[in-house]
Amino acid sequence: MIERITVLGAGSWGTAFAKVLADAGREVTLWARREEVAEEIRTARTNESYLPGVTLPTLDATADPARALDGAQAVVLAVPSQSLRANLTAWRDLLPAGVTLVSLAKGVELGTLKRMSEVITEIAGVPDGQVAVVSGPNLAREIAQGQPAAAVVACADHERAVAVQRASFNSYFRPYTNTDVVGCELGGACKNVIALSCGMAAGLGLGANTMATLITRGLAETARLGVKLGADPLTFAGLAGLGDLVATCSSPLSRNRTFGERLGRGETLKQAQEATGGQVAEGVKSCSSIRALADLHGVDMPITDAMHRVCHEDVDPRKVGAELLGRSQKHEWS
Amino acid sequence: MIERITVLGAGSWGTAFAKVLADAGREVTLWARREEVAEEIRTARTNESYLPGVTLPTLDATADPARALDGAQAVVLAVPSQSLRANLTAWRDLLPAGVTLVSLAKGVELGTLKRMSEVITEIAGVPDGQVAVVSGPNLAREIAQGQPAAAVVACADHERAVAVQRASFNSYFRPYTNTDVVGCELGGACKNVIALSCGMAAGLGLGANTMATLITRGLAETARLGVKLGADPLTFAGLAGLGDLVATCSSPLSRNRTFGERLGRGETLKQAQEATGGQVAEGVKSCSSIRALADLHGVDMPITDAMHRVCHEDVDPRKVGAELLGRSQKHEWS
Repeated sequence: MIERITVLGAGSWGTAFAKVLADAGREVTLWARREEVAEEIRTARTNESYLPGVTLPTLDATADPARALDGAQAVVLAVPSQSLRANLTAWRDLLPAGVTLVSLAKGVELGTLKRMSEVITEIAGVPDGQVAVVSGPNLAREIAQGQPAAAVVACADHERAVAVQRASFNSYFRPYTNTDVVGCELGGACKNVIALSCGMAAGLGLGANTMATLITRGLAETARLGVKLGADPLTFAGLAGLGDLVATCSSPLSRNRTFGERLGRGETLKQAQEATGGQVAEGVKSCSSIRALADLHGVDMPITDAMHRVCHEDVDPRKVGAELLGRSQKHEWS
Repeated sequence: MIERITVLGAGSWGTAFAKVLADAGREVTLWARREEVAEEIRTARTNESYLPGVTLPTLDATADPARALDGAQAVVLAVPSQSLRANLTAWRDLLPAGVTLVSLAKGVELGTLKRMSEVITEIAGVPDGQVAVVSGPNLAREIAQGQPAAAVVACADHERAVAVQRASFNSYFRPYTNTDVVGCELGGACKNVIALSCGMAAGLGLGANTMATLITRGLAETARLGVKLGADPLTFAGLAGLGDLVATCSSPLSRNRTFGERLGRGETLKQAQEATGGQVAEGVKSCSSIRALADLHGVDMPITDAMHRVCHEDVDPRKVGAELLGRSQKHEWS
């Protein structure tokens, strides 16, 4: 049984997942990059920058990775996908031998085109079966409020998936196991790009029909890529595919959706970035790496391609919208 | 080529679809039950009760079914699912021989447990291949406003599906063909029940994670029933499955969603009915007929069953919510 768990990264999802684990009865240490955040979590039991209004349960917090990782039986990686490699490289020598590594990061690494679990096995020098992935319709704020949610714990080693499932199961968090790591990770990475496109459509003044069409066709292109990379097509119909996608696309809390709305209203990438505190939404980076991965494998991903052109080639959102609609097809699946 | 089309039913979707056909260049006659509605459509080019603020294109309207059906090459049935049998029985002898019948109705008939196309072939005495079904993420109001939308035209006779596709294709309405009538119809019928459950969850104060989970598991139970009845599982991942479901569940315009919200807030079925002008949402009836169909074929549909118990057995929405969450499962697809 996993009892001592360390969560590395005190953003909204890292903090909410630390709360899930503590509420499941685990002994949790949360690592925050900044000492003042760690102190706030330790003393005030809040993380107002990321989860305003939420009171955290008893958990330890520190900005010292060595202290955070000491004695951990599982380590949860909750840092942004494009900085996972650099962070993990710094932490590598501190990881207890044989520890279960759990990834919350969703994305495909720019340049290497690796999924997060691939980055982890490479940097930590561990076999596939030691890395689990948690995904699903899991908006951090709602989970932190104790709203009921289902999730998927995917690991090539089923026993390890079950151990993470048991460690995180509580009255409001219900994890299911799965062995399709590739499918769960791609679902999580691609959904940010589709959410960006849904936001863009909303910013252009389009309604629920368009959003539903983008979700449907976006999931279809995600599944095409996934199947090519060895994923189980059923995964995309599940919580880590459809579930995560719908939650992200429909919530006003989603950063990707909000960012896309700004683009749809005519803001440039730079303007949208400035308006959101200098941050770029995950989907803005992922659309490029996912497009490159699709190109490499000869998979057609028109929505991802359109988002790449809007974000990185200065193409007008109205132009790509018209193009997407103008694609000539006769049978739904031809 | 289909040139003359009659639409029977001047509710919001019937009127919007008549506009789609007229905007596609067809000669359209719209039948309304009440003469004053027909007159408003003919003279003011509006149907304020059902599509407020929308100006209709040139189309004929009448309350006389004989006049409406005279010379029609295709007849679109746009009446509520539970009254389709009675209406069509009255119109049967007026239908031109060999005419293409197009169903916009979504539901499973109470008592007989027949899909709408089955009711049509039975009452009109025509073969399967003469009946087409239109479905997809098609909220009437948005289509009437000219927002771009994709749809599916399903017919056992592919040539007839193509004819309906060509007759309705215009600058904002993009129909794809499909031959899986069973899947398209079940997707359309079951989505009303799932939308009711999403509304109920929202009424209980739950957010996007719960809605996404209900959509995901709701689509899975729909597909289970569909596959048992001979549908192609791929249909449920498409516009008439996932697409229609997401549009209905996420739009504030959806009657099923709104009705469910009232139930979630603690109103009784009667109170919710009174508050919505005496109308009961389609999903309230469909949950009973779909549950009966699932029972008949030994298919487990927990969300549909829960909605039936809330709507017709006076069970507290909070109780079924807790039950749905408490279902013990370990692997996502076990």
